[in-house]
Amino acid sequence: MTATHAVFHTIALVVRQNTDGIAESVGSVVEFLQQGGYTVVFEEQTAAHLELMPASVRVMNAAGIGAHCDAAIVMGGDGTMLGIARQLAPFNVPLIGINQGRLGFMTDIPLEGMLPVLAKILAGSYKAERRTLLEGRVRRNGDTIHVGLAVNDVVVARGAGAGMAELRVDVDGHFMYNQRSDGLIISTPTGSTAYALSAGGPLLHPSLGGIVLVPIAPHALSNRPIVLPESSEIVIEIVRGRDASVNFDMQTFASLQAQDQIVIQRSPHAITFLHPEGWSYYNTLREKLHWNEYPSGEGKLN
Amino acid sequence: MTATHAVFHTIALVVRQNTDGIAESVGSVVEFLQQGGYTVVFEEQTAAHLELMPASVRVMNAAGIGAHCDAAIVMGGDGTMLGIARQLAPFNVPLIGINQGRLGFMTDIPLEGMLPVLAKILAGSYKAERRTLLEGRVRRNGDTIHVGLAVNDVVVARGAGAGMAELRVDVDGHFMYNQRSDGLIISTPTGSTAYALSAGGPLLHPSLGGIVLVPIAPHALSNRPIVLPESSEIVIEIVRGRDASVNFDMQTFASLQAQDQIVIQRSPHAITFLHPEGWSYYNTLREKLHWNEYPSGEGKLN
Amino acid sequence: MTATHAVFHTIALVVRQNTDGIAESVGSVVEFLQQGGYTVVFEEQTAAHLELMPASVRVMNAAGIGAHCDAAIVMGGDGTMLGIARQLAPFNVPLIGINQGRLGFMTDIPLEGMLPVLAKILAGSYKAERRTLLEGRVRRNGDTIHVGLAVNDVVVARGAGAGMAELRVDVDGHFMYNQRSDGLIISTPTGSTAYALSAGGPLLHPSLGGIVLVPIAPHALSNRPIVLPESSEIVIEIVRGRDASVNFDMQTFASLQAQDQIVIQRSPHAITFLHPEGWSYYNTLREKLHWNEYPSGEGKLN
Amino acid sequence: MTATHAVFHTIALVVRQNTDGIAESVGSVVEFLQQGGYTVVFEEQTAAHLELMPASVRVMNAAGIGAHCDAAIVMGGDGTMLGIARQLAPFNVPLIGINQGRLGFMTDIPLEGMLPVLAKILAGSYKAERRTLLEGRVRRNGDTIHVGLAVNDVVVARGAGAGMAELRVDVDGHFMYNQRSDGLIISTPTGSTAYALSAGGPLLHPSLGGIVLVPIAPHALSNRPIVLPESSEIVIEIVRGRDASVNFDMQTFASLQAQDQIVIQRSPHAITFLHPEGWSYYNTLREKLHWNEYPSGEGKLN
Repeated sequence: MTATHAVFHTIALVVRQNTDGIAESVGSVVEFLQQGGYTVVFEEQTAAHLELMPASVRVMNAAGIGAHCDAAIVMGGDGTMLGIARQLAPFNVPLIGINQGRLGFMTDIPLEGMLPVLAKILAGSYKAERRTLLEGRVRRNGDTIHVGLAVNDVVVARGAGAGMAELRVDVDGHFMYNQRSDGLIISTPTGSTAYALSAGGPLLHPSLGGIVLVPIAPHALSNRPIVLPESSEIVIEIVRGRDASVNFDMQTFASLQAQDQIVIQRSPHAITFLHPEGWSYYNTLREKLHWNEYPSGEGKLN
Repeated sequence: MTATHAVFHTIALVVRQNTDGIAESVGSVVEFLQQGGYTVVFEEQTAAHLELMPASVRVMNAAGIGAHCDAAIVMGGDGTMLGIARQLAPFNVPLIGINQGRLGFMTDIPLEGMLPVLAKILAGSYKAERRTLLEGRVRRNGDTIHVGLAVNDVVVARGAGAGMAELRVDVDGHFMYNQRSDGLIISTPTGSTAYALSAGGPLLHPSLGGIVLVPIAPHALSNRPIVLPESSEIVIEIVRGRDASVNFDMQTFASLQAQDQIVIQRSPHAITFLHPEGWSYYNTLREKLHWNEYPSGEGKLN
Repeated sequence: MTATHAVFHTIALVVRQNTDGIAESVGSVVEFLQQGGYTVVFEEQTAAHLELMPASVRVMNAAGIGAHCDAAIVMGGDGTMLGIARQLAPFNVPLIGINQGRLGFMTDIPLEGMLPVLAKILAGSYKAERRTLLEGRVRRNGDTIHVGLAVNDVVVARGAGAGMAELRVDVDGHFMYNQRSDGLIISTPTGSTAYALSAGGPLLHPSLGGIVLVPIAPHALSNRPIVLPESSEIVIEIVRGRDASVNFDMQTFASLQAQDQIVIQRSPHAITFLHPEGWSYYNTLREKLHWNEYPSGEGKLN
Repeated sequence: MTATHAVFHTIALVVRQNTDGIAESVGSVVEFLQQGGYTVVFEEQTAAHLELMPASVRVMNAAGIGAHCDAAIVMGGDGTMLGIARQLAPFNVPLIGINQGRLGFMTDIPLEGMLPVLAKILAGSYKAERRTLLEGRVRRNGDTIHVGLAVNDVVVARGAGAGMAELRVDVDGHFMYNQRSDGLIISTPTGSTAYALSAGGPLLHPSLGGIVLVPIAPHALSNRPIVLPESSEIVIEIVRGRDASVNFDMQTFASLQAQDQIVIQRSPHAITFLHPEGWSYYNTLREKLHWNEYPSGEGKLN
């Protein structure tokens, strides 16, 4: 879908840390934006690690960006995007991803040649794409002891030296299964190209309103991933699992005990990516995953 | 979802052919319905194969049932249901499935003890569940040469003695991939427990608005099933594939040639199953598929 | 293969700990053996946890059993067998497995009715089956810092809260691949029904001279398990992997650092199971794994 | 293993048909061989399709090549090699594969730069590798009605428009399973990179003495490939399967009826490939299959 023309005035810049030679690129983006009449804001961690910051640029945290910025440009990789997207999700700031290196699933504009692409997007020519997030609450003895937000996935996993975990899963009040495995991945469509894929899950198109449950090394031969509607409430109970834990996008963690429950639902927040016109999800799949690539030369000669 | 109370007056009966001892069960359903004041109608093929048909029962084809019946009771198995569901889909007649033998995915009321369950459903206590269908059109040189409807799946497959097929797949006007394989399954959530599952596809909850593409023995190691929104238009072109064909629910077939295109979309029609209150999709998965069943005794002793 | 008749004089008993009501069964086995003229020996841990031990029974450790016993009867489950098999492997003592509970892959004689079965085996009517073991050495800076023995598998795995591990694998001096994953399972045919199976590996018949490498949640879509001849020398180097570790049958562990190498080869030791005549590996597969079990009622009715 | 130095005098040439521009390459090989003092022989089909054949070259069929040649050079692709390897298998003629196009699993010498590589091999510097073949006999009412030989695989498959096949499989006189599926692939290690891989099978190292059974779209969730020792006798009975057939390397076919049995064993014949020194099976896996290739740029930036 192409959204109706948003008007951009103030743009936040989020830049990956510890990245050789990024300062020059950042400088050219700042110059480009300021010359175009946009107000530029630096995200506070970005400001902290960039050595030479233009004096004319203000610094804000996520809440500040949420209140004052019309879009955020993220320079780095999918990991950088993952971190800031979770922080900005409550504020509905659209995100533009520039990859420094190779194509990312969420950072889809190459650093080289980025300025004309940015120009077009800021002029209103873009493809806006909304991505669902998951919210997970850990309940122990009736209390909520941890709340997390995930762009990719919520992962419940056994401890490293422990035997397999046993998880009981209920969906919308119906018992689904008891599962023994190394863990269970509950993934958004965005996360379906990440850890869920490694564990054998299907790809979910970003505009599918679905959540996929993918077991990690399930004990039962007859297991299979299942895709649920995104309106589902998923409750996972730790039946057994020494040193089990839950993580959100592999970025925040909570330790779990037997009888703990993790309640997972679609977050009320969502994030919006602004892609260049002509962007294709399938192109990214093919380029990033070598999806469906043939054995070399196969069928050409035999 | 539990629908608002529908009022049932006229009920069609569809019965599996060549089924030993079914006549008696049919008789008891007819008697039960007539005593309850319902008008009973026999589907025409059912009437043709049942030897002793009560004189008081009218016979109708699918269109007649569509025009006059408030529900259809299907006695048999999932195959029987599949056949009649495709025929009745345009008429929006709710379906009640009685399995003669073991539990079916779509025929979920056991023959034994069916009468009290039917009584409750007809009295308005049921769980209505809507299932999406797929429509496929085969285009050759600009003409539509075949149209089919599928409750489970549309399957494009190579010929039996032929080498692998090469299929080009586009979705909503975007190129997705060129695929070499034995074929491609395009499945509804209903079909996700059928052939798509055998070929390695994920389970899709019936209320997920999704369509899954599952390759059959894909040549590329990097293939994976993908779940698309049900609003997608999927175009499959036969790039190469001697004796290729397309089938709909493995019940209707069309031969294909190179350059033929199969255009697949959600059908404007849908079907509605009436389940007994308390019905659980997950129960059926566990019972039918031994889903997630542990190796016997595992974890009990070691 | 049925081995030439071995003559049994002295029999060791190994019994699972913390098992309610096992004492009575042990008592009947001891009585049965002593009446049959066999000398009975208790493995030392078994002796320690059994409350009422007959005074007439000697106690030995693994080395003692290795030196003096002609066979060991293991009462418990596959876990009990796994532990003692590794200890007795250097001494070539044949193993007879009695399962208390349900059928095990390695404990294949049911507790109920075990005495006549034991009688036949001890009289020389059995099917002897040799199982290969793996030996793994951890090398750091040229030193061997850990040596382990595995009946099932050697597993190299990332830490629980860590990102994926990167492993370099060489086989017989040839570079095989660099792999990013949660870990890698190197499994014997015996282990192919255990963790390797959960991670998606194939079944290996016990008499196949093979070792299978099964990645756990591999990052690359194009990964696949590979079965190597059991003569292979496999070297795994930790390229990257915080808190990585290696375990042997999930019973002994060693922590790993980057650049550590794990060298895995067939052990010079092997173990021998004595099965009742008529024992079938495939029966066990079907019973334990519900291998190839159909969806209930499928094909019967539709 | 590097075999002891064989002495080569007479060399057969087998060339793929319908290959543009191959004549020049063939000419240079012939000239190279003749100048080196080797006698050159053309396989009869090769001779028939090559337009300009040197008068000095004799023409032989497979039996003639078997009787008079010390090696055969195959120019084309894996399909060409597959066809001639099956014909030459009874005669134990070593095979050298030159790929015209891209790297093949069995044709591993690139056309460009082939002459110096051939020179070294013919001078005795090579890596000889023995590959097992399968033999399959179709039995009907006690008679053998078809015998086939396979380098890659024996495939039993349902008819194109038919429902799934039901196959009963016995191994060495033990019942293994009843399987409902699209078919069953019985593959050598050589075939493990072909159709068996598409159907989800593991890779088998060529020197593993194993045979893998890989179901095609098996109905049961709990199915898995199984690797058997190559000494196994596998009997497949068609329990049910309209229009079922068996094929050998997808090159010869036989129609099957219910109750037909296919008996599969290692062939008494084997083939030997001569690879250049330094050849690595794993290199070929990585290059041909993109085996274990990472998503682009993954782990570099995030």
